[in-house]
Amino acid sequence: MSLKSRREKFCIKERLTVILVRPEKPENIGLVARNMMNTGFENLRIVGASSLPQKSYSTAVHAIEILENAEFYGSLDRAIADLHLIFAATSKKRKNFSLLSLEESVAKIFQYPNSTKIGLLFGCERTGLTSEELKSANFIFSIPQASRQPSYNLSSAVLLTLFQVFNHRLKKGGTAAYDQPISRRDQQECIRLILRKLEEKNFIHEGNKSHVTEMIHDLFGRLTLSSRDRRLLLALFSKGIDKRE
Amino acid sequence: MSLKSRREKFCIKERLTVILVRPEKPENIGLVARNMMNTGFENLRIVGASSLPQKSYSTAVHAIEILENAEFYGSLDRAIADLHLIFAATSKKRKNFSLLSLEESVAKIFQYPNSTKIGLLFGCERTGLTSEELKSANFIFSIPQASRQPSYNLSSAVLLTLFQVFNHRLKKGGTAAYDQPISRRDQQECIRLILRKLEEKNFIHEGNKSHVTEMIHDLFGRLTLSSRDRRLLLALFSKGIDKRE
Repeated sequence: MSLKSRREKFCIKERLTVILVRPEKPENIGLVARNMMNTGFENLRIVGASSLPQKSYSTAVHAIEILENAEFYGSLDRAIADLHLIFAATSKKRKNFSLLSLEESVAKIFQYPNSTKIGLLFGCERTGLTSEELKSANFIFSIPQASRQPSYNLSSAVLLTLFQVFNHRLKKGGTAAYDQPISRRDQQECIRLILRKLEEKNFIHEGNKSHVTEMIHDLFGRLTLSSRDRRLLLALFSKGIDKRE
Repeated sequence: MSLKSRREKFCIKERLTVILVRPEKPENIGLVARNMMNTGFENLRIVGASSLPQKSYSTAVHAIEILENAEFYGSLDRAIADLHLIFAATSKKRKNFSLLSLEESVAKIFQYPNSTKIGLLFGCERTGLTSEELKSANFIFSIPQASRQPSYNLSSAVLLTLFQVFNHRLKKGGTAAYDQPISRRDQQECIRLILRKLEEKNFIHEGNKSHVTEMIHDLFGRLTLSSRDRRLLLALFSKGIDKRE
């Protein structure tokens, strides 16, 4: 029996978690829950709060249970540590960073094994996800929009994303094209090791640190590291990178 | 020069009209306007109201202009009279009536010539569109949903529909596969003439009237009658249908 088939398999409903980072309007959290219910999802995590105000419950309609089971985290790092694959929604275009379309992101979700746990990250209504927060993602995606202003309401962005996942699942089963990634915690640890190596070798220095760090996060995020990838990369960065002159 | 190329052509933004039938919650109308703005649409008609309360404006954010230009109608018939093609959203499955998926509906929209004016019909939050109101449609569609309860919020249903249109347009140009329909007013007049003929011939009688009338509306709605179709049909129903024994 192969490693893969011994691993537990989950349905997409169980595998997918919506993560709201510092949401500001309680009504929106309730609307997110209703939209999750409509599209068949139930795992909700909230970063930067420890409970929900009553107002959230009044917009949740038949989806109170999702709010009652929501998990609260003090930091984004902790909220994603046990997941494998993080997709972050943004409306900002950042030069030099790859940005998937919503459709590409969803297609990608279905190319990973059934045991892969996926987090969908949405930022606060006013600012969206910050550059720092976007580093937590394997992939960054944006939802097509006709107008510059206003941006999609938070609950609308969640709805459009989840509907695309739901609809994709309805249409095709999807076949796994990629290996199971290591946990997001392990991915981040690996990226940190690489960054440290690059600093030791003076590839990263004061003048370029912030920019290169972002690029490295972006690059190795998109790789969705498997344990084999990690072994290779760590070996490569320990021995294979020359000190910069 | 062919008839078709002499006809005015419009972009989908100008051709598409959202029609809310008896909406009950003013906040939802504002959210609909914002969702229309996000997805690039601007024509809004409201049936069963003559103005909008302040509450609608407060949820519209940057889409106030859409509300200011909204048109009000006393009856659904008048609201759709000058359009050519009506798609009605419903969550009810009705036996013997064809129900398109959202995706099929949107694909269909792009198979008509650029001069075709399209109405998207959404019912009130509590009841949805009634059977009587559904007769105004050429096609009835439903938005896939994972849970039976709650149904999509009105503004969510509009968002998912418009996003699909917007996204479809982004991806492919679409080629016209069907002729331009006659106006919805003329389609309905033609269906009424057919119904009258069928009554004269006793095909429709007291015992089956309500059911057959619905079936006829459904059938000839889906045909999206062109002027040639109408000529043929009226000729057929004047001469070609035998009196029932």
